[in-house]
Amino acid sequence: MGKKTDMVLSVADMAGTVLFAVEGAMAALRGGLDLFGVMVLSFATALGGGVLRDLLIGAAPPTALRDWRYPAMAFAAGAATFAGHAVVGQVPVGLMTTLDAAGLSLFAVAGTEKALNRDIPPFSAVLMGTITGVGGGTLRDIMLAQVPAILRVDVYATAALLGAAVMTAAIRLGVAPRYAALAGGGACFALRMVSVWRHWALPTAMGLQG
Amino acid sequence: MGKKTDMVLSVADMAGTVLFAVEGAMAALRGGLDLFGVMVLSFATALGGGVLRDLLIGAAPPTALRDWRYPAMAFAAGAATFAGHAVVGQVPVGLMTTLDAAGLSLFAVAGTEKALNRDIPPFSAVLMGTITGVGGGTLRDIMLAQVPAILRVDVYATAALLGAAVMTAAIRLGVAPRYAALAGGGACFALRMVSVWRHWALPTAMGLQG
Amino acid sequence: MGKKTDMVLSVADMAGTVLFAVEGAMAALRGGLDLFGVMVLSFATALGGGVLRDLLIGAAPPTALRDWRYPAMAFAAGAATFAGHAVVGQVPVGLMTTLDAAGLSLFAVAGTEKALNRDIPPFSAVLMGTITGVGGGTLRDIMLAQVPAILRVDVYATAALLGAAVMTAAIRLGVAPRYAALAGGGACFALRMVSVWRHWALPTAMGLQG
Repeated sequence: MGKKTDMVLSVADMAGTVLFAVEGAMAALRGGLDLFGVMVLSFATALGGGVLRDLLIGAAPPTALRDWRYPAMAFAAGAATFAGHAVVGQVPVGLMTTLDAAGLSLFAVAGTEKALNRDIPPFSAVLMGTITGVGGGTLRDIMLAQVPAILRVDVYATAALLGAAVMTAAIRLGVAPRYAALAGGGACFALRMVSVWRHWALPTAMGLQG
Repeated sequence: MGKKTDMVLSVADMAGTVLFAVEGAMAALRGGLDLFGVMVLSFATALGGGVLRDLLIGAAPPTALRDWRYPAMAFAAGAATFAGHAVVGQVPVGLMTTLDAAGLSLFAVAGTEKALNRDIPPFSAVLMGTITGVGGGTLRDIMLAQVPAILRVDVYATAALLGAAVMTAAIRLGVAPRYAALAGGGACFALRMVSVWRHWALPTAMGLQG
Repeated sequence: MGKKTDMVLSVADMAGTVLFAVEGAMAALRGGLDLFGVMVLSFATALGGGVLRDLLIGAAPPTALRDWRYPAMAFAAGAATFAGHAVVGQVPVGLMTTLDAAGLSLFAVAGTEKALNRDIPPFSAVLMGTITGVGGGTLRDIMLAQVPAILRVDVYATAALLGAAVMTAAIRLGVAPRYAALAGGGACFALRMVSVWRHWALPTAMGLQG
């Protein structure tokens, strides 16, 4: 890719990291955690998915430890949220949902690309893209002693899965990486937004419960 | 080993993966998770132990990501269980327990062998065999926000530990791998089945509770 | 370092492992776990922080699996605690807190040094020292389906973080490793003990709760 595309990608990546860190910090505050807990959940939510992916594809130490800017941004976002949670709490839900869908799309696509670049087979690359997108939120929920939200409700992980699958398929069909990423990210974003708008949810097998 | 033994082993390995995936899916359904949650718990229960082992022995990316047939089988078993849970729920408990004991024995022995083949010291190889057998169920329980069952009740992990220890000892004594595996697997299966039949449980220190 | 320093360090490392294993076993007994659960929590509490660090810095298999003496000591300490929990329960709280602060300091400093020796950047080395100190207790709490104590209360992880930061800064300023370790360990121990004595706690944002 050209230098300009690279910079756009880097800026987007950093923006996604900051956004997920803010969401982790808000979850920590709602859970009554102290300042250290807020910092840990900011880090885990923003970078946990990428760390898991890097461990799984054999790329340790993960990017989040090699490049100090990622943890620094996650911690800065966590501290800022701790200090200004009253302000963050007033961001309209619709805006937050839209930004989150954009971050999810970006992480899913970036994770898929990294896995494919390391010769992970296509089927597993799709899993790695999905984990990059939703792994941070899953770690956050586990640390809050809750069943991860993505396992229970909403079309969220499914959107990440779709984006990763579309990107992988496009790459396999010979589409240039930048367009494959656009197609995958677009598919993830569109499915997520439509499912929020239409209140879609995945099926459960209610008869078995209780 | 000869080609025939290899094929028997592969078939057994795949059968164990499918069985554990079905058990993970049933646990997810009982926990009220949606279709994505069912797929994740199928994958985690069936392949989580092997993934943990591979990360710990430095064999990333793990087999479950290198060979697409393992995740494909786990997901297929999860989807089939989601669709046909009424049928799966009618499998007699005794049959399920017996199959599960067989799967546990197989995973414990296979995990021990893989660790020994990578020059992990004997003591740690026994741990790796145990983790291969019970790691998936432990991840499943953590994702369901429950204290892992193996830490609380039953002679289950202990059976995997015995099997791994018997196999490691036999290999150290110069027994051929296939017979060492048979001895280890047999010890695990026998201890598990007898403990279910006789209602054995590990001691707890009740005086400390409450 | 000279041979004598090495031996002092090894003895201290082993003492820290035993102490953390005892604490893990006591938590398991309070949680009503059986003998296997006690052994797992002894192992996880004593060695989980180091295992996490080694996976993250790309040093798999972790030391705890390469050197059989570490798991052997953790399991021996767990078994001894299971058998003699009445005695262990009578150790004065103040003594236990002091020993624990010493163990925390030691683990934080040792983890930082290992990360720096593997050319992990300074910012991440501080994180690795902190994880080495508190990762085991975090895993223990997650396995007990509890929100990790370090995220909720007390100046505990913050002390490990301070110790790791002091050590890293000292090394960067050219201080000899043994003095940097003393400074870092001393800072961690002092902050932890003073915070217990003065009932310090990190701020939370109470207004957001409930």
